[in-house]
Amino acid sequence: MNKVAEVIPAYTYGTTEIAKSSVSLDELEKLKASAGFTAQDEHFLHMAGEVLADQTQQIVAQWRSGIIASIPNLARHSRTPEGEPIPEYLGQSNLRFQQWILDTCLRPYDQDWLNYQQEIALRHTSLKKNQADGVRSTAFVPFHDIVAFVAVMNETIKPYLASKGNTEEEVAGMHLAWCRSLQMQIALWSRPYFDAAQKSSDHSINEW
Amino acid sequence: MNKVAEVIPAYTYGTTEIAKSSVSLDELEKLKASAGFTAQDEHFLHMAGEVLADQTQQIVAQWRSGIIASIPNLARHSRTPEGEPIPEYLGQSNLRFQQWILDTCLRPYDQDWLNYQQEIALRHTSLKKNQADGVRSTAFVPFHDIVAFVAVMNETIKPYLASKGNTEEEVAGMHLAWCRSLQMQIALWSRPYFDAAQKSSDHSINEW
Repeated sequence: MNKVAEVIPAYTYGTTEIAKSSVSLDELEKLKASAGFTAQDEHFLHMAGEVLADQTQQIVAQWRSGIIASIPNLARHSRTPEGEPIPEYLGQSNLRFQQWILDTCLRPYDQDWLNYQQEIALRHTSLKKNQADGVRSTAFVPFHDIVAFVAVMNETIKPYLASKGNTEEEVAGMHLAWCRSLQMQIALWSRPYFDAAQKSSDHSINEW
Repeated sequence: MNKVAEVIPAYTYGTTEIAKSSVSLDELEKLKASAGFTAQDEHFLHMAGEVLADQTQQIVAQWRSGIIASIPNLARHSRTPEGEPIPEYLGQSNLRFQQWILDTCLRPYDQDWLNYQQEIALRHTSLKKNQADGVRSTAFVPFHDIVAFVAVMNETIKPYLASKGNTEEEVAGMHLAWCRSLQMQIALWSRPYFDAAQKSSDHSINEW
């Protein structure tokens, strides 16, 4: 499997450490239908994976240092509650962020993928944030900020998709497949967030 | 204000029937930052409103009859629990669907807009679905299906944006603004969904 580094801390994709997703493969098929995601998108995502493979560091650097760092309500989630940087946390989560780009493009959307989608979401909710890296930071990333930032990722990925000389049609196909995948992923991530909201005793927070 | 019809049943935008949003204008500004939504997007959305104004019927017909009708897990939400069509419900909600396109493009994103965003979401949750039209249909539209279908709306809106002879740059600008707005709207809609999930006694459902 394509990996962005030899060792990616807490990257437990496909291992027995990961719980089974509460979303079934049958539900995933229905989700694909709702998003218009087809076998052609799988083809274009694989193409995107080849195109993006040696650019993931640059992409995540743009997202984190170029964009998130200057938006206080996003930047705080990789800092202590007092606002101090936690460089190791940022470094480790950036590696996983890079790997997520590859997984989005190159992994088959099977049970392991579904399971890890759930794990990704959980690690942003109050149920599991900070645990994988053993850090003290914000209790959760509000769901709405993740949804909104997807608009930024969808837009800023374009030049990277276009940087390897593919035709306009190929670039458009890769981008459409990327956008459809991210929309499905937000949909999947919302499930653990709902679970966390239901489990929360403090109804004024509710992970929004 | 630009309206798609003289009378739009249960279209209560800006009236005292609509509760105040639990999301503040300050939170909306932060959401804009997370989505990269700027004054330029407002400019392009207004342009999109002019371009789409006489096409809303055709667009909603494509979404409803051309796409949703052939996806069973989406089509059921405008039918009875037994699967019978409810033409009046469909007709009324289609008018509001058309108007939503105009509101997305032409309304200022102010308190009234925030309030109606909350109302739109509530009408898809178990807290308020079917009430505005007095019908018997599914209890709620799962949040994940709405998120996924946004990918379809984002893609299929393109030719309509390009149909009035605007430059490529203008079409791209309108489309980007549209996508950013829809992402913000999903983010806002998730809030009433979380509230509904928290209020639900049946944790196996949770509006997902």
